Amino acid sequence: MSNGDIFVGEVIGTAILILFGAGVVAAVVLNHSKAKDAGWVVIAFGWGFGVMAGAYTAAPLSGGHLNPAVTLGIAVDTGEWDKVPVYVAGQMAGAVLGALLCWLVYYAQFEANAEEDISQPTLGIFSTTPAIRRPVANLVTEIIATMGLVLPILAFGLTKGLGESGTAILIVSFLVVGIGMSLGGPTGYAINPARDLGPRIVHALLPIPRKGTSDWGYAWVPVVGPLIGGALSGLVFNAAF
Amino acid sequence: MSNGDIFVGEVIGTAILILFGAGVVAAVVLNHSKAKDAGWVVIAFGWGFGVMAGAYTAAPLSGGHLNPAVTLGIAVDTGEWDKVPVYVAGQMAGAVLGALLCWLVYYAQFEANAEEDISQPTLGIFSTTPAIRRPVANLVTEIIATMGLVLPILAFGLTKGLGESGTAILIVSFLVVGIGMSLGGPTGYAINPARDLGPRIVHALLPIPRKGTSDWGYAWVPVVGPLIGGALSGLVFNAAF
Amino acid sequence: MSNGDIFVGEVIGTAILILFGAGVVAAVVLNHSKAKDAGWVVIAFGWGFGVMAGAYTAAPLSGGHLNPAVTLGIAVDTGEWDKVPVYVAGQMAGAVLGALLCWLVYYAQFEANAEEDISQPTLGIFSTTPAIRRPVANLVTEIIATMGLVLPILAFGLTKGLGESGTAILIVSFLVVGIGMSLGGPTGYAINPARDLGPRIVHALLPIPRKGTSDWGYAWVPVVGPLIGGALSGLVFNAAF
Amino acid sequence: MSNGDIFVGEVIGTAILILFGAGVVAAVVLNHSKAKDAGWVVIAFGWGFGVMAGAYTAAPLSGGHLNPAVTLGIAVDTGEWDKVPVYVAGQMAGAVLGALLCWLVYYAQFEANAEEDISQPTLGIFSTTPAIRRPVANLVTEIIATMGLVLPILAFGLTKGLGESGTAILIVSFLVVGIGMSLGGPTGYAINPARDLGPRIVHALLPIPRKGTSDWGYAWVPVVGPLIGGALSGLVFNAAF
Repeated sequence: MSNGDIFVGEVIGTAILILFGAGVVAAVVLNHSKAKDAGWVVIAFGWGFGVMAGAYTAAPLSGGHLNPAVTLGIAVDTGEWDKVPVYVAGQMAGAVLGALLCWLVYYAQFEANAEEDISQPTLGIFSTTPAIRRPVANLVTEIIATMGLVLPILAFGLTKGLGESGTAILIVSFLVVGIGMSLGGPTGYAINPARDLGPRIVHALLPIPRKGTSDWGYAWVPVVGPLIGGALSGLVFNAAF
Repeated sequence: MSNGDIFVGEVIGTAILILFGAGVVAAVVLNHSKAKDAGWVVIAFGWGFGVMAGAYTAAPLSGGHLNPAVTLGIAVDTGEWDKVPVYVAGQMAGAVLGALLCWLVYYAQFEANAEEDISQPTLGIFSTTPAIRRPVANLVTEIIATMGLVLPILAFGLTKGLGESGTAILIVSFLVVGIGMSLGGPTGYAINPARDLGPRIVHALLPIPRKGTSDWGYAWVPVVGPLIGGALSGLVFNAAF
Repeated sequence: MSNGDIFVGEVIGTAILILFGAGVVAAVVLNHSKAKDAGWVVIAFGWGFGVMAGAYTAAPLSGGHLNPAVTLGIAVDTGEWDKVPVYVAGQMAGAVLGALLCWLVYYAQFEANAEEDISQPTLGIFSTTPAIRRPVANLVTEIIATMGLVLPILAFGLTKGLGESGTAILIVSFLVVGIGMSLGGPTGYAINPARDLGPRIVHALLPIPRKGTSDWGYAWVPVVGPLIGGALSGLVFNAAF
Repeated sequence: MSNGDIFVGEVIGTAILILFGAGVVAAVVLNHSKAKDAGWVVIAFGWGFGVMAGAYTAAPLSGGHLNPAVTLGIAVDTGEWDKVPVYVAGQMAGAVLGALLCWLVYYAQFEANAEEDISQPTLGIFSTTPAIRRPVANLVTEIIATMGLVLPILAFGLTKGLGESGTAILIVSFLVVGIGMSLGGPTGYAINPARDLGPRIVHALLPIPRKGTSDWGYAWVPVVGPLIGGALSGLVFNAAF
């Protein structure tokens, strides 16, 4: 795969991932959304199907990592580091683009803050916030949850009849649904530095009425935690398999 | 595939799609339905499994487009336009047939409007209505949501081990579930001109007691938006892949 | 396949189907169940995964019909009728066995009716009841819903890469989930004569405290409707494909 | 497969299973969890996707049993008993490890019991408790529910195109979701001795504030019941197939 294909694939795939992922939170939390209060089951499935949509679209161009923690885990496992920068650059650009698309889709709902003189939550649509702010515990949660994603992905390549097939991405999508359901409670499961940092930048820049803080004090946790989790997954995989 | 096979396949497949899709909204919103108030999670899965049922049935005859926006995206991508009219004709006829079948399935529930002197919502079962009526924003929502459907479909053909296999349609079905969960909040996600226009015609003609307006003033948005989104998907796909 | 294999396969498969299907209704409606009030989404998925469990188990022995309407639709399509009696006999015996197993699983919950001096619903766990009692409309609902099951099953055999593979049964399972969500509102979707009649017999015979009526006046609808729907599916399939 | 590979595979796979499974209950029942009160649908899917994540990861090393009842059913079926001890040892060690990881992920939420002077339920996160305490009935429930798991697993090996493929584990995952929805109401569906006993030991040892009883009086039921169910499944399979 050429650097150009990788970059374009990761931009398009990550943009679709964030469009769906930020979109499903907007769908559930914003007023005047038909999915208002649809609950955690919809949030978890929505993020998982966003991975599915993005990964299938990106697969022919870049293999569909869509996540610096996945790229890092594969690099630690294989020892090949030269493509890492172009993957991460594409992932960050795609995350920014996806957050902008989500804002366009829910534009009328976001504008209601000004038009109806209300204050709906907005940061939680773009980025993660912890249920209990306790950075070390939050970091541990993100590390373990990311290992729950990257370790199975590394092992899938070894399973008979799976490899790079269509079924593999379907399984990764349900894996992301499962992580959201099981491990998302404490921190909202970033498990992907680009997924959290890209949309947080967009939230800080967009002219959303009454959007509230972008909470930069917490922003390092959902970046550092997933990177540690991805690297640890590569190490554990190399030791065990 | 002959024109006759394409037409019959699209009629049967789109009829099944609309039977399931309109059916799940009826199931959730009508009184005396056992699924009353089952929520957005059921609506999103119901539409997705409707795509699955319709596409698998139609696949051997027509490939199972079931959606003029998909047909348009493929035509823009491939440059082959001669089969487009027969696809769209089958899709419109199938959407009308499916809406009639849904009405028959829920006949006793619709009649309750007269028998119990109540006014249940009916248009939302057949066609989409926006949560906030703001035509330009609604149009943008439908364009982006349709691209979230058609762009992955075009890319699937390139994914190893996917192509025309059974797994591909399963993935498209979950993709539709994801679009409903993530991008359906503002407009109810038509993402398919036939899906909205066919049932709206049926709603206008059927003798449902106290059925309310068919809202023709909004009807252009869920037709024009998906067509633009489908065409844009073909252009983006050709540029990127 | 020998008659013995077919009979044993259909008994085991249909017993598993009814164990799961009756079980999920018991789980959602009975007091002292951990899934109490889990809603229609759980009922629809529970029945679908029951089909999956039963069909996969029965597949090596009998192909896993588990439903006289499916057996009838295939017979109308292929013109081969000699195996129909053994299929239906196995399906009825399996449905009775499955209903007994469900009663054993929820024995303590059923006994609470006497021990706690309450009257929980019980017929709805075993068999279907209409939301609005209107036999002709109920019959039409069952006919159309059964066609939504059998017509896609007949067409699946023609889809590339599907046929008798593992993926096919997975798709049929999600199809049953979709029928429950979309078409189950008016009558509770029997779509299978054995699924309704077998457990109704068990309900009539079991010594459940305060079990209420077995409603034999309605029992013909969920038998006749699915049989008509299965036969019509065979005719439509032969004409269209 | 070497004994070392089997042990490591079962440890990693069962740890992931319990991390997800205990995690989803923590997510739904603990205060300050974003998935609080998400309901039985999330618990059932969370456990199922935990099986998926664990089984896919373990598959290349050990085949991914993750459950002494499955190992026992296969041994009864095949008559090969020499690998059983290493499988069960790995499963128990993995269950203990997974319960510890779950505690780390939800550490801040568990600590809230002391910090906020409250008493959240904790045993139900780690191990099963019956809705109605009636040991014989509970035992029968666990036996039948485990047969609903192990009998289909044994039969899957015979289904065309399934065998050891990626699709097989996906199906087992949905099977576990179905068992949770349909048969989990009375006892919380252990269906796996390691899944219940390992985490119960961890619950007894961990310094969780106000954790309450570990209920050792009930602990034999979710061990003995699944073992009987697994052995019966092997016998029924041998007789019928």
